[in-house]
Amino acid sequence: MASENKHAMTMPMQRFLQSRPAEFGEQVLRGFGQVMLQNNPASGLLFLIGIFVSSWQSGLYAVFATAIATATARLLGAPSGSISSGLYGLNGTLTGLGLATFLNHDVTLLIYVAIAAMSVTVVMAAIQDAVGANGYPLTGPFVLTTWIFIGAVYAYANVHSASALGSPHLPKGTLTVHVPIVASNIVTAILNGVAQVMLQQNAWTGAIFLVGIAIGSRVCAAAALLGSTIAVVLAWSLGAAPELIRAGVYGFNAVLTGMALGGVFFVLHPRTVVFSVIAVCFSTILYGSMTAILSPISLPALTAPFVVTTWLCLLSRASLPRLRELSPSEPATPEENLRAARRATSTRE
Amino acid sequence: MASENKHAMTMPMQRFLQSRPAEFGEQVLRGFGQVMLQNNPASGLLFLIGIFVSSWQSGLYAVFATAIATATARLLGAPSGSISSGLYGLNGTLTGLGLATFLNHDVTLLIYVAIAAMSVTVVMAAIQDAVGANGYPLTGPFVLTTWIFIGAVYAYANVHSASALGSPHLPKGTLTVHVPIVASNIVTAILNGVAQVMLQQNAWTGAIFLVGIAIGSRVCAAAALLGSTIAVVLAWSLGAAPELIRAGVYGFNAVLTGMALGGVFFVLHPRTVVFSVIAVCFSTILYGSMTAILSPISLPALTAPFVVTTWLCLLSRASLPRLRELSPSEPATPEENLRAARRATSTRE
Amino acid sequence: MASENKHAMTMPMQRFLQSRPAEFGEQVLRGFGQVMLQNNPASGLLFLIGIFVSSWQSGLYAVFATAIATATARLLGAPSGSISSGLYGLNGTLTGLGLATFLNHDVTLLIYVAIAAMSVTVVMAAIQDAVGANGYPLTGPFVLTTWIFIGAVYAYANVHSASALGSPHLPKGTLTVHVPIVASNIVTAILNGVAQVMLQQNAWTGAIFLVGIAIGSRVCAAAALLGSTIAVVLAWSLGAAPELIRAGVYGFNAVLTGMALGGVFFVLHPRTVVFSVIAVCFSTILYGSMTAILSPISLPALTAPFVVTTWLCLLSRASLPRLRELSPSEPATPEENLRAARRATSTRE
Repeated sequence: MASENKHAMTMPMQRFLQSRPAEFGEQVLRGFGQVMLQNNPASGLLFLIGIFVSSWQSGLYAVFATAIATATARLLGAPSGSISSGLYGLNGTLTGLGLATFLNHDVTLLIYVAIAAMSVTVVMAAIQDAVGANGYPLTGPFVLTTWIFIGAVYAYANVHSASALGSPHLPKGTLTVHVPIVASNIVTAILNGVAQVMLQQNAWTGAIFLVGIAIGSRVCAAAALLGSTIAVVLAWSLGAAPELIRAGVYGFNAVLTGMALGGVFFVLHPRTVVFSVIAVCFSTILYGSMTAILSPISLPALTAPFVVTTWLCLLSRASLPRLRELSPSEPATPEENLRAARRATSTRE
Repeated sequence: MASENKHAMTMPMQRFLQSRPAEFGEQVLRGFGQVMLQNNPASGLLFLIGIFVSSWQSGLYAVFATAIATATARLLGAPSGSISSGLYGLNGTLTGLGLATFLNHDVTLLIYVAIAAMSVTVVMAAIQDAVGANGYPLTGPFVLTTWIFIGAVYAYANVHSASALGSPHLPKGTLTVHVPIVASNIVTAILNGVAQVMLQQNAWTGAIFLVGIAIGSRVCAAAALLGSTIAVVLAWSLGAAPELIRAGVYGFNAVLTGMALGGVFFVLHPRTVVFSVIAVCFSTILYGSMTAILSPISLPALTAPFVVTTWLCLLSRASLPRLRELSPSEPATPEENLRAARRATSTRE
Repeated sequence: MASENKHAMTMPMQRFLQSRPAEFGEQVLRGFGQVMLQNNPASGLLFLIGIFVSSWQSGLYAVFATAIATATARLLGAPSGSISSGLYGLNGTLTGLGLATFLNHDVTLLIYVAIAAMSVTVVMAAIQDAVGANGYPLTGPFVLTTWIFIGAVYAYANVHSASALGSPHLPKGTLTVHVPIVASNIVTAILNGVAQVMLQQNAWTGAIFLVGIAIGSRVCAAAALLGSTIAVVLAWSLGAAPELIRAGVYGFNAVLTGMALGGVFFVLHPRTVVFSVIAVCFSTILYGSMTAILSPISLPALTAPFVVTTWLCLLSRASLPRLRELSPSEPATPEENLRAARRATSTRE
C-alpha cells in the first residue's frame, strides 16, 4: 500500500510514455469524429482529410491541439472512457481550428494554441461537473476557451488577428437584397454549412464530411443535410446576407442541432422530428442574434447557438414527460437508439 | 398494457382536441394573471382589458402568443398543474407583448411570434429544471427568448425593428436636469410603472392593472403601488432622465420585485418589509445599470432586473436563517401566507 | 417554546447591540485579511495600513463598507462561523474599495456604498448557495455587485464616475512598443500587482501587503510574489501596454490565483505547482480578454478572471482524480494543508 502510494506520483507519466502510440492515435482520431457526434476513428480520419483538403495549416493546428488536449487529459487522470471515446479531444480539435481561423499564423500562435489546448481540457472537466451526471458539455468548453483566447488580441500586441475576425462595430442592419435562387448556390450553401462545423468553407470538404458522418450513421448524415437545408431556407426567407448564407455560416449550428436532437440524444419518432425542426429554426435565429450581439467585441458566435439550444432541449426533458420518454439512457447513433427503444417495447409486451 | 402503449402516441393530440375550450380559455387568462403573480382568471381578464385600452394590437399579439405557448405546453405534456395555474402561459404573454413592442407589425412578425411562443415554452421547461425544485423561473424564459428574437433584427433584413427599440450606441451619461416636482407627473409615473410590467405606457392601463391585482390580493396591490413609488423617488433623486421616469420604465421591475418579495415569496413581517424595500432599490439601480450595459447592442432590459434580484433573494435564504424562517412552503397571496404562518405558530404553542 | 418564539423577532437586534465591539472589530479585520485569503486579524490590520499608505479615502470607504456588510450579515443571521472568519466582510471591503476607485467622492457615494455593502451581503449568501457545499463564492459577489453599481453611472446623473473608469469605446489593439527591460520597472510592476488586489497602485503598499500575507503564511507570500512575476513576464512577452504592466493591473488576478491554487485550495505538490502556473497564465490571458470585451460598456474586469479561473479549476476536480486526491477537506494555509496531508499518509501506512 505504502509503496504503491509512493509510486503514485511518477506513475502517470510512466504509464503515459509506455502506452502504445496506436492507442493514442485512435483517441486523437475519435476526438475528430466526436466533433460531428461520431464515436468512430474512421469517421474521424475522413473529417481530418476533409480539413486538409480545405486548408493544410488548419489541419496541422487541429492535430496539434487535439494531441495536446488528449495528452493533458491523460496526465490529469480524466476517466479513460471519456478519453478513449474522444470526448476530451473534440474540444481541443475545435480550439485549434478556431484559433487557426481567427488568428494569424506565426510562432506566437503555436505557443498560444498549446496553452489553449491545455486549458480547454480543464474547462471540459469543469463543465462536465457543472452540467451534472445527465448533462453533456457538448462543444461548450471550445466556445468559452476560444472566446477568451481570441478576446485577448485587443490587449496583447504580439497576438495578431486574422482577417476572418473582422473589427469591432456596433450592430447594424442588413439591407434587403433580392437574390435570385440559383440551384448551384443552394448546394454550395448546404455543403459549406457542413464544412463550417470544422470552420472550413469548402463544398468538397462538406461532401467528405457527409461521407464520414454516414460511415458512423446514415441517419446522422441525413439529419446533417436536412439541418443545413432548413437553415439555408430559413435564413434566406428572413433576409440574411446572401454571401454569408452561401459561405455556410448560417448552417453549421443547424447541422449539429439536427444531428444531436434528431436521433443521438432523442429516439427518432414523429414527435422528436417536429421538435428537432423547431430547435433547428431556433438555433438559426439564435446564430443571427448572437452574431449581432457579439459584434461590438468582434467575437464569432462559434457553436454557441448549438450548445445553448441543445442544453435547453436536454434540460427541458425533466419537465416534459413526452420528450423524456423518448430519451435514450445513453446517447448513441440514431440507429442504435431506435433498436434499443424497440427492444424495450417488445420486452414490456 | 400493449394497446395503451400503442395509443400513447396519438392520445396527446386527441386529448388536446377533446378538452373543453372553456378550460383552455381559463388557462390563457390565468397566464395573463400570473404576469402580475396572480393565479386568478378574473385578474387576468382585467389585465387583458388594460392592455387593450392601451393598444389593441398588443392585446391581440398577447392573446395569440399566450394561446400558442399554452397549447405547446399541453402538447409536450408539461405538468397539468403548472399549465392550469398559468405558469406556462405567462412567459408566452410577455414574449408576445415584447416582440409587438420592439418589432414592426407585419406578416413576418406573426410567424416570428409563433416560433418565439413555442420556443419560450421549451425554455420555460428548461429553466424550471435548472432552478431546481425550490426555485422559480419567474419571467426569466421571457427575457432570454425575447432578447434572442429581438437581437436577430440586425442579422435578418425581413425582421424590422420598431422605433421603441432605439439604435445601438455606446453608453453615455444623462445630463443633470432639475425638473420641478409636479404632482400630476408623479402620479402618471407611478401608474405607468404598473402599466409597463405589460410593456404599456398608459396611466389608465396602470390603474386597471391595480384593480386587477387587488381582486387577487389587496396586499399585492399595495406592494405594487409602493414599489413603483419607491422606484420613482429613488430614480428621481439619483438623477435619472425625467421623461423616462414619467414613462414608467424605472418602475416596472420595482413593482414586480415589491410584490414578489413583499408577501408572495416571503411572509409579511417587519423584517421582510425592510428586506423588500432594499431589494426594490437594488432592482431599480440594476435597471439603470443593465440599460446602459445593453445599449451597445440595443437590447431593452425587460424584466431581467426583477428576475436577477428575486433569484438572488430566493437563493440567499439557504444561508440566511432569519429570511428562511419567513418563507412559505409554497408561494401564495400575501394574505394566505400570513394565515398559514399564524396557523403554524398557534399549532406549535 | 412559545415565549422563545415571541422574543425571536427582537433578539437579533438586541444580540447585535450587546455583542462586544472588540468581537465586531476582529470580524472586520478578518474581512480585510480574507481578501488575500488570510483568515487572520493581524494580516488584515497590515492590509488596512497598506491601503491607508496609498489612499486614506479608500481606507475609510473600505472600513465603512466592511462594517456595513458584516453588520448586515449578523442582522440577517448568516452562519456565525462564516462571519467570524471574515467571509462576509471581504466582499464588502472590496466593494467599498471598488466604488471609491471608480466613482467620484461625494455625498451620494456614501449612501451608494452603504446600499452596495448591504446588497453584496445578500449576493454573497445567494452565491454561497449557488456554488454548493463544496464550492466557494471567492470574490464573485464583489465583482457582480460592483459591476451593477458602476454600470448605473450612465443612467443616473447624480452618480459621477472618477477618471479611473475611462469612457466606453470599442476594443482597439495595443501598439507593439519595444520597451527596454529596466530592473526598477519590473520590481514596481510586481509589487503593484500585489497592491492592485485592493485596487491600490503603490509599490510600498504592495510590500506591506506581502508582509501581511507572510504573517499568515510564508508559502502564500511566495505564491503571491511568484504569481505577480509570472503575470508581468507573460504580459510583457505577449505585448501588453507597458504602462499598464507597470501599474500592476496585469498582476493582481495572478496573485490571487497563485495563492488560491498554489497551496490554499490544493495541497502543495509538483503536480499542483505545474497546474497553478498554467492557471496563473490562463488568468492573465483572461484578464486581457475581459478588459477588451468589457470596454464598450467601460467596466473594469476587477477580480473576475481570478474567480472564473479558480471556479473552473475547483469544478474540474470532480472529473480529474489526480487533482482531487490533492484537495484538502477544508481550505487552509498551505502549511496546514501540507501537514494534514502528511498526517493522512502516515496514518494509512
